[in-house]
Amino acid sequence: MPETHARRRAALRSLLRERDLDAQLVVDLRNVRYLTGYTGSNAALLVHAQDEPGDEARTVFCTDGRYLTQSAQQVPDLERVLDRPCPPALVERAAAGTAYRRTGYESHRVTVEDLDTLTDVAGDVELVRAPGLVERLRMIKDDAEIEALRMACAAADRALADLIEHGGLAAGRTEREVARDLESRMLDHGAAGPSFESIVATGANSAVPHHRPTDAVLHAGDLVKLDFGALVDGYHSDMTRTFVLGRPADWQRELYDLVASAQAAGRAALRVHAEVSGVDAAARDVVERAGRGEEFLHGLGHGVGLEIHEAPALAKTGEGRLSAGMAVTVEPGVYLSGRGGVRIEDTLVVRDGDPELLTLTTKQLVVV
Amino acid sequence: MPETHARRRAALRSLLRERDLDAQLVVDLRNVRYLTGYTGSNAALLVHAQDEPGDEARTVFCTDGRYLTQSAQQVPDLERVLDRPCPPALVERAAAGTAYRRTGYESHRVTVEDLDTLTDVAGDVELVRAPGLVERLRMIKDDAEIEALRMACAAADRALADLIEHGGLAAGRTEREVARDLESRMLDHGAAGPSFESIVATGANSAVPHHRPTDAVLHAGDLVKLDFGALVDGYHSDMTRTFVLGRPADWQRELYDLVASAQAAGRAALRVHAEVSGVDAAARDVVERAGRGEEFLHGLGHGVGLEIHEAPALAKTGEGRLSAGMAVTVEPGVYLSGRGGVRIEDTLVVRDGDPELLTLTTKQLVVV
Repeated sequence: MPETHARRRAALRSLLRERDLDAQLVVDLRNVRYLTGYTGSNAALLVHAQDEPGDEARTVFCTDGRYLTQSAQQVPDLERVLDRPCPPALVERAAAGTAYRRTGYESHRVTVEDLDTLTDVAGDVELVRAPGLVERLRMIKDDAEIEALRMACAAADRALADLIEHGGLAAGRTEREVARDLESRMLDHGAAGPSFESIVATGANSAVPHHRPTDAVLHAGDLVKLDFGALVDGYHSDMTRTFVLGRPADWQRELYDLVASAQAAGRAALRVHAEVSGVDAAARDVVERAGRGEEFLHGLGHGVGLEIHEAPALAKTGEGRLSAGMAVTVEPGVYLSGRGGVRIEDTLVVRDGDPELLTLTTKQLVVV
Repeated sequence: MPETHARRRAALRSLLRERDLDAQLVVDLRNVRYLTGYTGSNAALLVHAQDEPGDEARTVFCTDGRYLTQSAQQVPDLERVLDRPCPPALVERAAAGTAYRRTGYESHRVTVEDLDTLTDVAGDVELVRAPGLVERLRMIKDDAEIEALRMACAAADRALADLIEHGGLAAGRTEREVARDLESRMLDHGAAGPSFESIVATGANSAVPHHRPTDAVLHAGDLVKLDFGALVDGYHSDMTRTFVLGRPADWQRELYDLVASAQAAGRAALRVHAEVSGVDAAARDVVERAGRGEEFLHGLGHGVGLEIHEAPALAKTGEGRLSAGMAVTVEPGVYLSGRGGVRIEDTLVVRDGDPELLTLTTKQLVVV
């Protein structure tokens, strides 16, 4: 989809021109991927503000010799240089020309030491801090991105359905076995891999928000929390469901219903122009009114896309408002230390009107 | 192994005192893990130069509420604060005391923007660039680390043996199927996961150094290159083997023998005090004498440990000398574009005398 990438570069150019920048040095690999389609492990990109789609003669892509063939296939539409390390190679290139006088750089990614290296070769090029420009574009997903997220969420939904259908979530298995089974089933459904280290937490472990799967055995009566996702075309899905093995105790059902109510309130608050801190508050209020505010140990959610955690943060301290096309998670959790916890999480896209739910697994309490 | 971590912190303190630093702010998560054993996704550490093992009252660990339980288990021996983001929280903490006047920070990890945030809360604390201190310690592996690497390499060796024994490397299968099979077998042998995205490259794809597995089908007569590793206790193994499906053609055997000779020369050059650039040269000379220097597209190898690529770089431009206890890869490759390529890679530990080979799979040309 070279047009998609050309369109994204054009959008970046508008931001550069607003800032009187002649060019932008892009070093974050996810940003490079977003702007070019390159998926390797080493690259940088110098985007010139005045280039035009179809005539990007001053925009240069850099990778190293290992990616000679791959970069020719993935980035056929830009000049490619093979050098290492890439960021100083591109700054040297800018310094050799006259068209890159004010060049922005990703000061939220470039380290203090890296900046020295760049400055050493910058010559007459003025290196200007320009953090987060591509991330700003990436907050609003285009159709290709939403389709990738949809596929990633579907792979996770299907894997979970398979797992349950085949009796994979059962007393006697270990957390690790369940995690592996689930991850294998995501691959069956087209995932390149899990989008992060899967969380399977049973019994008291479910009270640990980011528990890693262990050899702990699932027992009848346990709350079992699964937080996992699939990676498809570089896009990450993210979903949490909590189950009860066998008949739920009253406290488990109560806890579940509380979190489900908070999660529904959070989803209902996902409206264009809503303050992100207000979305967090909508869910958190439900938990606080039940006297459990202290046991909701984290923010409500986060943006998701080429990174598993990206802007916007749906948190107390989050800033800004929602826009149509943002993809976010809504994932309240309440954790009773030593007993068990419940978290329920969806990935959704903010739309005019109701948000689009991408993770379709039921949120009814499923007793397995 | 709290003693191990305490010993590593003591080693860091020596480096701090040499630099007249009162403390060091550690933000790189692998460095935090190395110094504390913490394995979560968010933390930082402030190590005071004058603390003593058993009395580390001015050394503070920070994570957030999600890791309340986990950090209590993994870092029982240090004061823990729960805050987010951690680096500025620890600098604020330093600014509130008087014992952290000159505090170093990891300027090779801290971004230009992050430094602003730290400076804003630093008060009378002087933030001093101190890049790569923990990485310098990490270059020399201790026994616990070498044991983890040994287990990681063994998981990869065993997985590959299983794969071949069960006919998993055979004409008719796709690269993706082979990769998945291999990764699943590494899990069977105790890996937490693959240590990087496995490379399975058949036929002409084997000429692409970092080819990703596709739906390309393995055919009789193909060179098949597998570059993969296992992750055990946070440590990464790294091994490449190249096979021929069926009877090798003369050019394949010739190419294989050339790379095997270069690899043997590289291994033989792994001696305490050897210049890293000289190790690269030892292998590269073999390839260049055969007139294939232009087709050896990358450096000879790299350090391996908590990161898949870490210091030292065994490359033309690498600097420094080998020491006993360094774990490195030796992986020459020659790539004939459009035809096929061969790479052979081991993970080894530099020792007084001969290096210790950790990846034990044969390097004879195996015809499957």
